[in-house]
Amino acid sequence: MDFFFNEPNRVVDQVLGALARSAPLIVAEPGSGVRILARADWRSEQVAVLSGGGAGHEPSHAGFVGRGMLTAAVSGEVFASPSVAAVLAGLRHCCGKPGALLVVKNYTGDRLNFGLAAEQARREGLHVRTVIVADRAEHFASQLLSLGMTLSSCTLPGHPIERRSPELGLGIHNEPGAEQVAPKDAAEAVALVLTPLLAAAEQRYGEQRRLIVMLNNLGGCSTQELAVLTDELLTRIGVERIALLVRPAPLMTSLDMHGFSITLLPAEDDYVEALSSVVAAAAWPGVYRPHATQTFAVAAESDAEPGVGQRSPANEQAIQRVTAALRAAEQQLDQLDARSGDGDAGSTFAAGAKAVDGKLANGALSSAEPARLNDELGRLLAHAMGGSSGVLLSILFTATGTALTAGKSWPDALLDGIERVQHYGGAKLGDRTMLDALIPAVQVLPQGLAAAATAARAGAEHTATITRARAGRSAYVPEHALAGAVDPGAEAVALAFAALAAS
Amino acid sequence: MDFFFNEPNRVVDQVLGALARSAPLIVAEPGSGVRILARADWRSEQVAVLSGGGAGHEPSHAGFVGRGMLTAAVSGEVFASPSVAAVLAGLRHCCGKPGALLVVKNYTGDRLNFGLAAEQARREGLHVRTVIVADRAEHFASQLLSLGMTLSSCTLPGHPIERRSPELGLGIHNEPGAEQVAPKDAAEAVALVLTPLLAAAEQRYGEQRRLIVMLNNLGGCSTQELAVLTDELLTRIGVERIALLVRPAPLMTSLDMHGFSITLLPAEDDYVEALSSVVAAAAWPGVYRPHATQTFAVAAESDAEPGVGQRSPANEQAIQRVTAALRAAEQQLDQLDARSGDGDAGSTFAAGAKAVDGKLANGALSSAEPARLNDELGRLLAHAMGGSSGVLLSILFTATGTALTAGKSWPDALLDGIERVQHYGGAKLGDRTMLDALIPAVQVLPQGLAAAATAARAGAEHTATITRARAGRSAYVPEHALAGAVDPGAEAVALAFAALAAS
Repeated sequence: MDFFFNEPNRVVDQVLGALARSAPLIVAEPGSGVRILARADWRSEQVAVLSGGGAGHEPSHAGFVGRGMLTAAVSGEVFASPSVAAVLAGLRHCCGKPGALLVVKNYTGDRLNFGLAAEQARREGLHVRTVIVADRAEHFASQLLSLGMTLSSCTLPGHPIERRSPELGLGIHNEPGAEQVAPKDAAEAVALVLTPLLAAAEQRYGEQRRLIVMLNNLGGCSTQELAVLTDELLTRIGVERIALLVRPAPLMTSLDMHGFSITLLPAEDDYVEALSSVVAAAAWPGVYRPHATQTFAVAAESDAEPGVGQRSPANEQAIQRVTAALRAAEQQLDQLDARSGDGDAGSTFAAGAKAVDGKLANGALSSAEPARLNDELGRLLAHAMGGSSGVLLSILFTATGTALTAGKSWPDALLDGIERVQHYGGAKLGDRTMLDALIPAVQVLPQGLAAAATAARAGAEHTATITRARAGRSAYVPEHALAGAVDPGAEAVALAFAALAAS
Repeated sequence: MDFFFNEPNRVVDQVLGALARSAPLIVAEPGSGVRILARADWRSEQVAVLSGGGAGHEPSHAGFVGRGMLTAAVSGEVFASPSVAAVLAGLRHCCGKPGALLVVKNYTGDRLNFGLAAEQARREGLHVRTVIVADRAEHFASQLLSLGMTLSSCTLPGHPIERRSPELGLGIHNEPGAEQVAPKDAAEAVALVLTPLLAAAEQRYGEQRRLIVMLNNLGGCSTQELAVLTDELLTRIGVERIALLVRPAPLMTSLDMHGFSITLLPAEDDYVEALSSVVAAAAWPGVYRPHATQTFAVAAESDAEPGVGQRSPANEQAIQRVTAALRAAEQQLDQLDARSGDGDAGSTFAAGAKAVDGKLANGALSSAEPARLNDELGRLLAHAMGGSSGVLLSILFTATGTALTAGKSWPDALLDGIERVQHYGGAKLGDRTMLDALIPAVQVLPQGLAAAATAARAGAEHTATITRARAGRSAYVPEHALAGAVDPGAEAVALAFAALAAS
């Protein structure tokens, strides 16, 4: 299965069936053998406008049925013109006293079948006029410049995939292109199409005439590719020269054809006005007037110290005991982590501890001002420690600092920080993370650091009995691998509280 | 070149750059190293709503910036969460006194980076709240049911194409799916996704609860495939059970991933109201309430005779001389056609002649009523003769009949018919077609059939000197192949007029 299709002969009916049920349309009864989608709200008091052609080019044409665009669309099979009978039935359905305009595309099969249907309708007394796009809407058509480029051809439903190499001007039914090309990137692909188009525009419209521009996804370009092509187009033509851009979209496709086409028109006032009209057709993407990029300034995050506040030698000694304990435990924590993760918990905590030591050595921490100190540690660890643990500890310290600033006590502020860590990290008590040591310790903190250290140790030891991790990396590890091993994050917290209690 | 990209590291900036210039957006200055797209018309008098995440999922999230949806989007690199600094810069830009809501997707990197940025913003005094999609917008998120299916994985810019086989639940960064599957067609693919979703919906929402449905193109589905999937979806769920359908579109993509996802929600009034709101975000496709197919009746084209008018034995004899001449010339015309076409001109004309003979034998042509006769011949030849010639002759007879009905003389009516043939067929005098015999003959028709036959013969002979065909199939044939050979269409016309003149 290469494509999301069913039997090849059902593709067209399903494509149209989806549209018929999702928009205010009315369709020719299935048994009739003809495929017509018409406005359900049509009252025949205006001139009806009909078009159509082979299928496989959706959203053309049925997607453009709706107030302000087509009254009805007549569809053939994939890449085959609809029958004369189908076009005639469409005319009979829509054409009231004011008459109908039949828009015929310049493709032999369409010209003949739509033409004969128009003649038959006239024979029946209907007031029908036809316009063959490209040789009768003369003024408009003579100014339209269009060229496509494809990386590969399209695949008809039920046929094997055969990809042709890149071509300029490949037809929408895989007709041979003007030449094979080998662009090296999107910039070259757009240049290959735009260079001849802009040269022709210069000749036909005059020098530097402002333009109406359309970028059509021939079917297989991803959203990201279409956006890159749009960016190239805007840059190459220059936004100041583009009066209107039809929003890049699939407009006239060829199934999964991996390519795009660009169409230019001079920005005549009546074209701009007509194209800017609000319409109710499901697939019309609307127009924009592109503009130069507008920017706003972003304050650079400076690594320079914002100035240090009050310092406390006693607090700095306590902090250094913690960092020393963590740096000494690097190998032990790495080994614990190897049981459940990638064995770098020790080096991650050691890196954080080393960074803190560096700040202390430079006298760059406001060790006597708890709120400010937490904020400084939060900023430092986000960068210096790495990994999820670094961001989580940074969240812990930052949120604790915010709570301290708001006047909360140390234990309450830490509980706020823990709540934030749980919110973003998603772990709960018992999930075999550092929280299993941290939460019990903070809960008894009002009783002093010794009680907190005891609780942290008990909490850490308890993680060795948790064999079903629900958060963090251990969640992906089999139960037997976890049994008996303390979680390295919880161990680090226990070591830290032990060091603080020893101060 | 497999995709319309430039250097891989430029993809994200180009994708966002295209959007920034096509919509009323303002972006973080390029030198800032952060990627933020914000509403240019934002005035900070309301609560700002921000979201974001890794790139490669466009139009998420920048395409949803605009009045009624996001205030700003923060983008990372392809499939990588934006930095804490980027999110913080976005909050600083948009968050006024009323505060900001940060919508965080339930992906570890996003949770941590957006979370830390929110904490830092709060530390700076900004009023920021976060909602983690999937575990805090609890009521809504607990009801969302989503499942995807892919025919192949996505390709990161700059990486080789490696297609995985079909999977159910493949992640949007190519994370392994729940299982490998092998649907045989679109119907099975949709069933694989919908069956578990509808079972879960039954459990969570209650039996036969009406639904809000979203069909997301993961990136690589063509317009036609997405429509076929939509058709399957509508049929399987039933339009009467769908309160709202988000118009099928790329919403959350994974580059070129060839797949789709379906999301269900119960049709609670406030969801329906919120999703139906008119918004100004570039990529929001809007919603529809799908309905049963509405049909109109088409009058069957009956092969039954509509009743024959007056007949004229003399006219029928003249017609039979023409058909006899054309049937006798079958081989000669085929041979002429072999010089410039596929050698079937003789058999095509003979088929038409035979059909006319059949009608005459049944007394089924109104041979004494010129207008009606032309109309009958037009209807007959469109079906019986085949090929472009059949349709063109049908146009000739039908338009001539219309003109006769309007009261024109035979020669004038035929000139009307010829004008229509030229209009739809695109050929002019001298283009080496049947017109080169027909036009001179009709021009002298007022002088009698003998003069017309002479003119037709001269016109046909002249085509042997035209080596540059501009219309019809001869247009594709080298000049030397045409030299000296009469055009078979012109020859047939000359034979027909000769037969008429002999009557």
